[in-house]
Amino acid sequence: MSRTSSAPSTVGPIRLGPQARAALRPCVAPTVTAGFWYDRREVNARVGIPQGPGLLESAGNLHNLRLAAGAAEGTFRGDYPFQDTDVYKWLEAASWQLAQDAVAGRDTTALSAEVDRIVDLVAAAQDADGYLNTWFQSGRGEGRFSDLRWGHELYCAGHLFQAAVAHHRATGRTELLEVARRFADHIDTVFGPSGSGRPLDTFDAHPEVETALVELYRETGERRYLELAGYFVDRHGRGAHGHEVYCQDRVPLRDAESVEGHAVRQLYLLAAAADLATETGEQALADASARLWHAMAATKTHITGGVGAHHDKEDFGDPFELPNERAYCETCAAIASVQFSWRMALLTGQARYSDLIERTLFNGFLAGMSLDGHSWLYVNPLQVRDGYLDGGGDQSSRRTRWFRCACCPPNVMRLLAGLEHYLASTDGDGLQIHQYATGRFQGEAAGSPVTVSVNTNYPWDGRITVRAEQTPDTEWTLSLRIPHWASDYTLTLAGEPVGGAVVDDGWLRIARTWTSGDEIVLDLDLAPRLVVADPRVDAVRGCVAVERGPLVYCLEQADHPGGGLDDVVIDTTVPLLVKERPDLLSGVTTVIAAGRRRALPETGWWPYQAQAPSDSPRQGRPLELTAVPYYAWANRSTGSMRVWLPTD
Amino acid sequence: MSRTSSAPSTVGPIRLGPQARAALRPCVAPTVTAGFWYDRREVNARVGIPQGPGLLESAGNLHNLRLAAGAAEGTFRGDYPFQDTDVYKWLEAASWQLAQDAVAGRDTTALSAEVDRIVDLVAAAQDADGYLNTWFQSGRGEGRFSDLRWGHELYCAGHLFQAAVAHHRATGRTELLEVARRFADHIDTVFGPSGSGRPLDTFDAHPEVETALVELYRETGERRYLELAGYFVDRHGRGAHGHEVYCQDRVPLRDAESVEGHAVRQLYLLAAAADLATETGEQALADASARLWHAMAATKTHITGGVGAHHDKEDFGDPFELPNERAYCETCAAIASVQFSWRMALLTGQARYSDLIERTLFNGFLAGMSLDGHSWLYVNPLQVRDGYLDGGGDQSSRRTRWFRCACCPPNVMRLLAGLEHYLASTDGDGLQIHQYATGRFQGEAAGSPVTVSVNTNYPWDGRITVRAEQTPDTEWTLSLRIPHWASDYTLTLAGEPVGGAVVDDGWLRIARTWTSGDEIVLDLDLAPRLVVADPRVDAVRGCVAVERGPLVYCLEQADHPGGGLDDVVIDTTVPLLVKERPDLLSGVTTVIAAGRRRALPETGWWPYQAQAPSDSPRQGRPLELTAVPYYAWANRSTGSMRVWLPTD
Repeated sequence: MSRTSSAPSTVGPIRLGPQARAALRPCVAPTVTAGFWYDRREVNARVGIPQGPGLLESAGNLHNLRLAAGAAEGTFRGDYPFQDTDVYKWLEAASWQLAQDAVAGRDTTALSAEVDRIVDLVAAAQDADGYLNTWFQSGRGEGRFSDLRWGHELYCAGHLFQAAVAHHRATGRTELLEVARRFADHIDTVFGPSGSGRPLDTFDAHPEVETALVELYRETGERRYLELAGYFVDRHGRGAHGHEVYCQDRVPLRDAESVEGHAVRQLYLLAAAADLATETGEQALADASARLWHAMAATKTHITGGVGAHHDKEDFGDPFELPNERAYCETCAAIASVQFSWRMALLTGQARYSDLIERTLFNGFLAGMSLDGHSWLYVNPLQVRDGYLDGGGDQSSRRTRWFRCACCPPNVMRLLAGLEHYLASTDGDGLQIHQYATGRFQGEAAGSPVTVSVNTNYPWDGRITVRAEQTPDTEWTLSLRIPHWASDYTLTLAGEPVGGAVVDDGWLRIARTWTSGDEIVLDLDLAPRLVVADPRVDAVRGCVAVERGPLVYCLEQADHPGGGLDDVVIDTTVPLLVKERPDLLSGVTTVIAAGRRRALPETGWWPYQAQAPSDSPRQGRPLELTAVPYYAWANRSTGSMRVWLPTD
Repeated sequence: MSRTSSAPSTVGPIRLGPQARAALRPCVAPTVTAGFWYDRREVNARVGIPQGPGLLESAGNLHNLRLAAGAAEGTFRGDYPFQDTDVYKWLEAASWQLAQDAVAGRDTTALSAEVDRIVDLVAAAQDADGYLNTWFQSGRGEGRFSDLRWGHELYCAGHLFQAAVAHHRATGRTELLEVARRFADHIDTVFGPSGSGRPLDTFDAHPEVETALVELYRETGERRYLELAGYFVDRHGRGAHGHEVYCQDRVPLRDAESVEGHAVRQLYLLAAAADLATETGEQALADASARLWHAMAATKTHITGGVGAHHDKEDFGDPFELPNERAYCETCAAIASVQFSWRMALLTGQARYSDLIERTLFNGFLAGMSLDGHSWLYVNPLQVRDGYLDGGGDQSSRRTRWFRCACCPPNVMRLLAGLEHYLASTDGDGLQIHQYATGRFQGEAAGSPVTVSVNTNYPWDGRITVRAEQTPDTEWTLSLRIPHWASDYTLTLAGEPVGGAVVDDGWLRIARTWTSGDEIVLDLDLAPRLVVADPRVDAVRGCVAVERGPLVYCLEQADHPGGGLDDVVIDTTVPLLVKERPDLLSGVTTVIAAGRRRALPETGWWPYQAQAPSDSPRQGRPLELTAVPYYAWANRSTGSMRVWLPTD
């Protein structure tokens, strides 16, 4: 196969189309060069991504592709019709990594070779008419597109398209993009409004192809893909899948009042809705996307940014139904939430979307990968009780090398590998810094490039230095997000307060004529804080959580010898202390609180008792509580953990 | 078919074997003649049971039997391999009803004819070698006993055996018992220690056959059945099903420290363990049964007596993991809990087992049937949030006419129809009244019969009058259970305190020489009370529940116009009031509390906020709270409900 190649671009997961109506657009060629996210991405680059091909081989995914290509004997390996997506997500991750390595001037030979090998495998597995899904090709599924409730064929196609777009953007190569186009054209023929007679008026019950088709349109300019995405989004809620909530079919998206059903499905669908609103300018879809995002954030999101309250059906619960020990909070749902929120941030320019992205990235998302990059969490609870697993508890909230349903690990890989693209944006009149990481970001002002470098030890330190590197002589606006948790901050330039800075709904906007070398210093107050929930969040009544900066903290049993955590109480009258612990969990800042082990009542065989008027059991053994960042939990032992701490 | 018949006995679901080592044994010919349970049983007799055959016909269960008998065309109807059990549980219910009607001198012609018809159907469906399971006979299941993880063949057999025992005890007829024996013999041949070579060293992952085999032994005297029951119980925890918790295979029962896995499976297995300990006298099994019961009661039971914390896998959660809105608390699990507890009560004589039975019967169990007997709850949550179902919430906690998996309704029918057998016992030295209902109970003292009649308007009224009807001239002991919730009571005879009465671990024991006509009056204090949970029950921190007598109360939206229940707060400083409401919910006593609608915080898009030092939002609109018995909820509307009420 010839390797045609054009110059690689430095575009990330989203490139807006020429008619897009978005408040912001992603930066060109962002980089992250040091600090917290750099370190996490290095683990991803050195451990996470390189282990992919071996795991995909041993789990059977690559065998299944060879089987479809006629290059292997045997039968389909694995239990699910969506196993091809593990390969596609890995290809996407590897592609973003190749782009990142190319920008950094690193040797990409080994990873390129792996990518080439697997792209060839995918291409060889494709049928002559463009169809590609090894579950159905191997005979495990009966009849193409005959079971869109469970078959996941378009879901798989969507991940293929995203991988192909990433591969093309990162390498300039077209092999995988050609595979994607052939499959997309085939799907359009079968389903599409421009297809031959539209025999199937339905959609895949697991959304994903919709947002992927929009991006395929953006990459190829082929409007049929955009129209097909819109067509699929419009099918939801019309009963093709019996109006089942699980299938995102209860109501049309534009009529929905809140997020519902399977969290990942809902959020991939909403990412597509935001994409479509951006590309078509349709206000109803933009309104619905914003309405559902707000319903999610205000009533169905855990403090970690995790979403999905139920193990059963992996769905959103009711408003304010946010359990701790049974929080599902699938790692993939956190990723989908970030993808949806980023599209909304670009569409609207509002800072709150990036507030939620920050919270989700640092907490509900990052917990999904172990510190060493070798194991993963599928489920991200906010509490693990004493003795959990002793009684055969659910193993899904323990770190695992790989999963039978391995959707999460390569999803983490692809988000981390492309993370620099979620950090900053431009509106044509300057630059917006959404997330704070050391690196370099380029925007545009009145047609000229504006470039800044950011230096920070965030989130451990609240100081963020932004230096103007490239600037025209005319005024432009640097916008810095003031995180919604930040109660106080200062802004200086050469030690002096900065004139002309105004706060505008979460954005600190600094409009001035810049000189190359100007250094703005933003100091965010990182005093640790106790946080309470809306009283309708019944699961955390009488509790507080510890936060510092964007980090949510938790207690782990490992730091509290002499017992578990079921009897721990925090004393909220004693000020919190901060303690740097370079020795702990790859280096973290801990928060120290006063507390005690509760004197437990003698309840005998029944744990409910008539309330005694004098009940106020403040007794108990004093205990120093050591809170560690939630993202770092479950890296030491299998003991108990809790985010929300009883105050009495 | 000839209808051979011997004189019907008045034995209930349990008749101890001749070698049984139990502290107590069930009463002979108990009756319930008026009052609360009489009324509920009348609904069961007039509405519940009579609708069974029609529902079993329309759901396909009877068709499946005809199919197996070669008397119908077509294919298996329904989705599950355990649908025969709906028929068997109905036959058991109808049999207990026939016995009850016979004692009451009622016409049983119509019900007898239905029972005969369906017994004939079951008999005709049996294969020549004794095998009987329509799922496998119709070809839906592949190969007898080849899939005991999911096939439910022995589970189905168990319900057949229980139905056959009930039918025999109630009618004296042997047709169904013969069917059961043929199948039991076949199973013994395939599996049993006395079978031919024991080719299958395994067990059904859904226990039920074990306790049924013990009862079949008790009814027939065939010890092979007892041995086979023991054999199956011993197989658990040895890896036949991969040590899966869901299959009750993680650890051997004698080594287990707490209840775990699927709640119904666990409790049917424990019922068998208690049966076996009773019949064999094995201390290790008795100890394990008691240990697991206590672990369940003290750490894994909701205040309603409901058990099973998780929708996912229908299993027990961790200790003190007792969620409200997502409490699974399957109606069948409440029934299984009663069955297990009653066996433990007989084995040990301890009152606490009947304390839990009372709580479960009046609350977690009884909620499973609508007041009119026409619809059912499968799941029994302790909270339904405002707007539930608006977002497509899980429908399983709404009353339903019948279920695709209809295990619960006929299970309710059989427990209600045989309920008189769970109320009193004898130890050979008198009579123990476990549950208070108007009726007549006969025990034995020194070989002579002792009979009492009970008169009470319990649970609405705390006065229980026990009249000696038949007594020898010698001293014997009447034992009255003082419920664990009763903070105070008085005992009088002809208005005077009773001498010789001592309280002994939950039993009030009155040892005296009785005269026929003596009337003991027990007055239990029914002042309503506020109840708090062990602080480790995180889900109800900062909340109280309202109880009165054995009843747990709840708020329903229907009684609180002008809003939902998510914002309701109870004021615990104002005394509770009792209000009789003959007009409400078939006649209930309500409890009135003072409360308010909370002034909800302005949280904007994010529901978690830094704790303000002065946070004490005691404001809000005053609201009179009307609490109704939990068992009566969801009989009026689909609004919200909650058992646990925030105090602040």
